[in-house]
Amino acid sequence: MTIGQTPADRPRTARTRAENILADRARILLSCPDRPGVVAAVSQFLYSLDANIVQMDQYSTDPDRGRLFMRVEFDLPGLSDRRHRLQEEFARVAEPLAMNWEIRYARERKRIAVFVSKMDHCLRELLWQWEAGDLQGDPVAVISNHPDLGEIAAAFGLPFYHVPVSRETKREAEERQLAILREHRVDLVVLARYMQILSPGFVQAYPNRIINIHHSFLPAFVGANPYERAYDRGVKLIGATAHYVTADLDEGPIIEQDVQRVNHRDSIEDLKRIGRHIERVVLARAVAWHLEDRILTYKNKTVVFV
Amino acid sequence: MTIGQTPADRPRTARTRAENILADRARILLSCPDRPGVVAAVSQFLYSLDANIVQMDQYSTDPDRGRLFMRVEFDLPGLSDRRHRLQEEFARVAEPLAMNWEIRYARERKRIAVFVSKMDHCLRELLWQWEAGDLQGDPVAVISNHPDLGEIAAAFGLPFYHVPVSRETKREAEERQLAILREHRVDLVVLARYMQILSPGFVQAYPNRIINIHHSFLPAFVGANPYERAYDRGVKLIGATAHYVTADLDEGPIIEQDVQRVNHRDSIEDLKRIGRHIERVVLARAVAWHLEDRILTYKNKTVVFV
Amino acid sequence: MTIGQTPADRPRTARTRAENILADRARILLSCPDRPGVVAAVSQFLYSLDANIVQMDQYSTDPDRGRLFMRVEFDLPGLSDRRHRLQEEFARVAEPLAMNWEIRYARERKRIAVFVSKMDHCLRELLWQWEAGDLQGDPVAVISNHPDLGEIAAAFGLPFYHVPVSRETKREAEERQLAILREHRVDLVVLARYMQILSPGFVQAYPNRIINIHHSFLPAFVGANPYERAYDRGVKLIGATAHYVTADLDEGPIIEQDVQRVNHRDSIEDLKRIGRHIERVVLARAVAWHLEDRILTYKNKTVVFV
Amino acid sequence: MTIGQTPADRPRTARTRAENILADRARILLSCPDRPGVVAAVSQFLYSLDANIVQMDQYSTDPDRGRLFMRVEFDLPGLSDRRHRLQEEFARVAEPLAMNWEIRYARERKRIAVFVSKMDHCLRELLWQWEAGDLQGDPVAVISNHPDLGEIAAAFGLPFYHVPVSRETKREAEERQLAILREHRVDLVVLARYMQILSPGFVQAYPNRIINIHHSFLPAFVGANPYERAYDRGVKLIGATAHYVTADLDEGPIIEQDVQRVNHRDSIEDLKRIGRHIERVVLARAVAWHLEDRILTYKNKTVVFV
Repeated sequence: MTIGQTPADRPRTARTRAENILADRARILLSCPDRPGVVAAVSQFLYSLDANIVQMDQYSTDPDRGRLFMRVEFDLPGLSDRRHRLQEEFARVAEPLAMNWEIRYARERKRIAVFVSKMDHCLRELLWQWEAGDLQGDPVAVISNHPDLGEIAAAFGLPFYHVPVSRETKREAEERQLAILREHRVDLVVLARYMQILSPGFVQAYPNRIINIHHSFLPAFVGANPYERAYDRGVKLIGATAHYVTADLDEGPIIEQDVQRVNHRDSIEDLKRIGRHIERVVLARAVAWHLEDRILTYKNKTVVFV
Repeated sequence: MTIGQTPADRPRTARTRAENILADRARILLSCPDRPGVVAAVSQFLYSLDANIVQMDQYSTDPDRGRLFMRVEFDLPGLSDRRHRLQEEFARVAEPLAMNWEIRYARERKRIAVFVSKMDHCLRELLWQWEAGDLQGDPVAVISNHPDLGEIAAAFGLPFYHVPVSRETKREAEERQLAILREHRVDLVVLARYMQILSPGFVQAYPNRIINIHHSFLPAFVGANPYERAYDRGVKLIGATAHYVTADLDEGPIIEQDVQRVNHRDSIEDLKRIGRHIERVVLARAVAWHLEDRILTYKNKTVVFV
Repeated sequence: MTIGQTPADRPRTARTRAENILADRARILLSCPDRPGVVAAVSQFLYSLDANIVQMDQYSTDPDRGRLFMRVEFDLPGLSDRRHRLQEEFARVAEPLAMNWEIRYARERKRIAVFVSKMDHCLRELLWQWEAGDLQGDPVAVISNHPDLGEIAAAFGLPFYHVPVSRETKREAEERQLAILREHRVDLVVLARYMQILSPGFVQAYPNRIINIHHSFLPAFVGANPYERAYDRGVKLIGATAHYVTADLDEGPIIEQDVQRVNHRDSIEDLKRIGRHIERVVLARAVAWHLEDRILTYKNKTVVFV
Repeated sequence: MTIGQTPADRPRTARTRAENILADRARILLSCPDRPGVVAAVSQFLYSLDANIVQMDQYSTDPDRGRLFMRVEFDLPGLSDRRHRLQEEFARVAEPLAMNWEIRYARERKRIAVFVSKMDHCLRELLWQWEAGDLQGDPVAVISNHPDLGEIAAAFGLPFYHVPVSRETKREAEERQLAILREHRVDLVVLARYMQILSPGFVQAYPNRIINIHHSFLPAFVGANPYERAYDRGVKLIGATAHYVTADLDEGPIIEQDVQRVNHRDSIEDLKRIGRHIERVVLARAVAWHLEDRILTYKNKTVVFV
C-alpha cells in the first residue's frame, strides 16, 4: 500500500500498462434468436475489419430455436479512431439477426463505487486486488453509512463519503448517494457488506450494475443473520453468494458462489471468520468478471464466460 | 463383483478380517454436563481395565457449564468375555456424572436395510464400498417400491423385497417393511434415493437410525425437484445432504454435505448427472461414519468425530 | 446391472437413444497458425451448409502469431449422406489456412478396450457410467494380466481376455493384446490401474489414444508406490492424474487431475482407499472428454474444451 | 488499518481482549511411547488441579507400541500464579511415562518476524488477519532484502529492517538478521515469499520455528520457478505448501497445502496471480496453527490437531 498519495496520481502505473495492452481491445456482447449464421456473421464482420479474435464464447439455451448468447473479445488496430464506424457497421450486422448488442472498450475502465458499513474485509480485498493490477476497473469512491472505514479509503487515495441512513432519512440518503454516483460517473456499484437495503428506485437506476455479496449459499438463508441460522441448522458447509441486485432481496441473478467446510466445533464467531474469507474471494471474482464484461443475464440467471 | 453367491457365504472374507482386527475393540459414546473430571474418570476407568485408547474425542458446547460429548475408541484384551462386567462397571462411573452413554462393540457389525426406488447409483456405491471392505457393517436386505433394482441386489447375494406403495396401501406397506426390518434384525435404514416419505410412526421406530440422502444442499431446495429448482435459480454449485430422518421432511440433523461447481451450460439433465456423483459419495460417507459410531446428535444437529 | 446378457444385446437401448439425438452431430477439431479470418472461414463454411453450431471453442497460444486450436460441434441435417462431401469441402477451407484438422462423427461411438490388473474400482466406475448412459463410447473388451476381474466383465456382457505378462513373454503378450485391439477395432485404450508398462512400440500404435490413471498428483510421485511415498512425505492432499501415455513413463500430456484432503491419522491403507475414489472419478472424466472429442494436444500438454 | 500508529500502541485492543479470555488458558503438548494410562495420567493430573479441559487430541502411530502425540488445551483458574507449580508437578507425571513435553501459555502471545522480498500478498494477508484479531500472536518486525515493502510495515506500525543480501554478504546479513530476531525476542520466523535461502546455521537457531510458503504443491516442483514449470508440464491444478524449514531446501515437514484448478488458457502470469491467493491462505493457516500450538512434528512430518 502506498500511503499519502492523492487519488490523481495513484493508479497511474496500472493505467499506463493497461492502456498499452488494451487500447485496441473491445468486446461485443450480444444475444439473439439462435439460428444458423450468427457466428458466421459476427466473425465475418470482424474479419472484414482485420480484427483479431482473442476469445469467442457462445451459449445457446437450445440449438434448435433457443436464444444465443455470445461474447467476442478482439483486437482491432487503431480502435480509438474507428469506434464510431465500428458501432455503425455492427448495427447493420445485428439488425437482420434481431440482436441485442453492445460493444465495450477495454480502455474505458469501469468506475466503481464501493458501499460499506463497518466490516472491512470485502473493501480491503477489492482495493488490494486493484492495487495488484488484477482489476480492469477503478474504485473512485467509498460510500458508507458509518465513518469507520474512512482511513482505509484514505490510505488508497479514495474519497470517502459518510452518508448516515435511518428509516426517516433513507430517501434523502439515497438521493445523496445517487448524486455522488453521478458526480463520479460511476459504472458499477459494489455492496461490500453494506448493511442497508436499497430502495427499488435506486436499484432501477443501475440495472445489472449493482453487485452484492450475500453471506450465505443462496437460496439457503435468504435475509438476515445467515451465519446464526447456518449454525442453528447445523450445516457442514457455509458459503457466500455474489449476485446482481434486483428489487427482490437476495433474489437477483447469481454471479458466483463458493463454500467452505465447517464442523460442530465452529461457533457462530468461527463461521463469521471463515465466512469472511469466502465472502471476499467470491465478491472479488464477481467484480472482476463484471469489469471484464464476462457476464450476461437472462431470466434472472447469469451466463458467465470465463 | 462375485455373482451367484448366497448371502450367507458372501462377506465371509471381510468378516474374518474384521474379526481379527476388531474383536477387542469397543467405543463409548457419551454426553453429560461439562465439568472438570469427566475425561479423567473415563480414562482412569479404561486404564484400570488395562484397555488401550485408540482414539478419544470430545466436544463441549461450552467449557463453562456446557454439555460435553465424548467418543472413546479402545482395545480391551479378551473383550468378548468381559462385556457384561464392562457395562456394569462403566455404569458406576457414569452415574455420578449424569452421563447418557452407550458402549458399542466393533465386532457387532450393524445390519443395514437399503431402501430404493428406481435410481441405482446410491445403492451401487454402498454395495461396492461394502464389497471393497470399506464399510463396518453389512447390508442384509434391499427394499423397494419398484422391481427395477432386484438384479443388483441379487448380484450381491442380497434378498430383495418389492413392496409397492400407494396412498391407499401406505399403511400396510410400512407394516410389511417394518416386519422385514425386524426379521433381518436391522440396525440402520438407508434411504438411497427412496422416493417415498416415511410416516412419523415408522420414523419413531428407528430414531437416529434412518439416514436419507437429499439431492440438494439443505436448507436450500427443501422438498421435491431440487435440481429443477436449482436450475431455475441459476446456482453456481449444486449439492447433496445426508441427514437423519425425523418427522419433519428434510429437517433432520445433517450428517454430511458436499457440492460441485456447475455453470450456465449445464441442463437439468446435467445437474442430475453431476448430482448423482455427489449424492453417492455424501451418502456413503455418512453411512460409514454411522457404522463406525462416529455420530452423536443433539438439538437437531450432529457431532461427527472423524 | 443386468446379468447374463450377451454383448450384442446389452447396450442397445443406449445406442438407440444416442443415434436419434446424435445422428446429425459432428465435430471439427483443428489447429493452425492464428491469424484473422480463421473463425470466419469455419463458421462461414458451416453456415453455407445450413449447419447449426452447437458449441464453438477456440484457444490461441498467442493472439499475435500464436497457434490456434478450435473445436466446433454442429448439427448438420442429413449428415450421414453428406459426410463425403463435407470432408472434401472442408479440405478446401483448411488448405489455405494451413490447418491440421479432423472431423469426428458423434454417431461413430468410440470403441474402448479397458486394461486392468487386479484392482476393480476404475473398471467398475467406467462400466457403471457406461451403463448409466454417461459415456459417448462403448467398452468392447477387457484385457488383464490377471484373471481376477473376469466376472465383472462377464456381468456387463463384455469379453474378457486374460493375457499374462512376464519379462520374458512381454513381447508376445503385447502382440496378442494388439491383435485383440485390432480384432475389436478399438479406438481408445484405457489403462484402468493396469500395472504393467507398455513398450514404446505399443504406445506408438495408439498415439494420444491410450489414457492412463496415475495414482498421484503428477509430477509429484512419478513412478511406483506413490501412496507409500505420499505417506512418507507427509503431504496434506493426495491426488490422481489421468494422462495420455507416451514413451516416457508418467510424462505424457495431463488430461485431468484432482485431489482430496488427508491428515496425519490416515495410514497408507487409508490413502489408498481415499485415492481409489479420486482415481475413478478423474479417469472417468478424462475418458468422457476423450469420447466427446474435447481434447487436443500440443507440446506435451492438453487443451480441454469443456 | 489504522495509519500512523506507533508499534507500541497498535495492538493494544487485541491484546486486552486476548488477555481477558486467555489468561487462564494453557496447552500441554507431549509425545511418548503409547501404552495404557497416558491419557488417564494427564487427565487425572488436570482434574486434581481443578482444571477444565477445553480440547484434548491424541494420535498414536500405532496403538500397539507406537508413539503417542497429545495436545490438551485447558483453563486453570488463577493460572498466572500457579505456573511454576504446574510445571513442577507435571514433570512428575511425565517422567515415568518418558514424555517429551512442553506447556504453552495462551497469554504468552508468540512474537513473529516476517521475512519478505518484493511480493506483498503474504505479508498483507498476515497483517490483515492479525488486525482482524484472528492470530494468537503478534508481528514485531518485518525484515527484507529489498526496501519495497517498508511502507506496508509502517502502516501497521511495525519496524522494517532492510537487510540486503548478496553472495558475498550473506554471512553478515544473516548475523544482522539473527541480531534483530534476538533484539525483538522473536518466537516464530515466517518466510512470506522471502526469496533467499537461509543457511543451515540460521535454520538450526530456530528449529521448527521457521515457516516457509513454497509456491507449489510439494513435492512437485521443488526449487525455483514452480509456476513456470507447472505451466510447462500442463498441470490442471496448482498449489502451495507451507512447511517448517530444515536444512534441506523444500524438504521440511509439511504443515498445510491447498490447490486451485487452472486450465490451458491460464498463462504463467495467470498461474502466478491465482497462486498468490493460494499462497496467502495456506501460509496464514499454517501460521495460525503454529501460534495456537496445534502442530507437533516427528519423522519430518507434522501432526496438526485442528
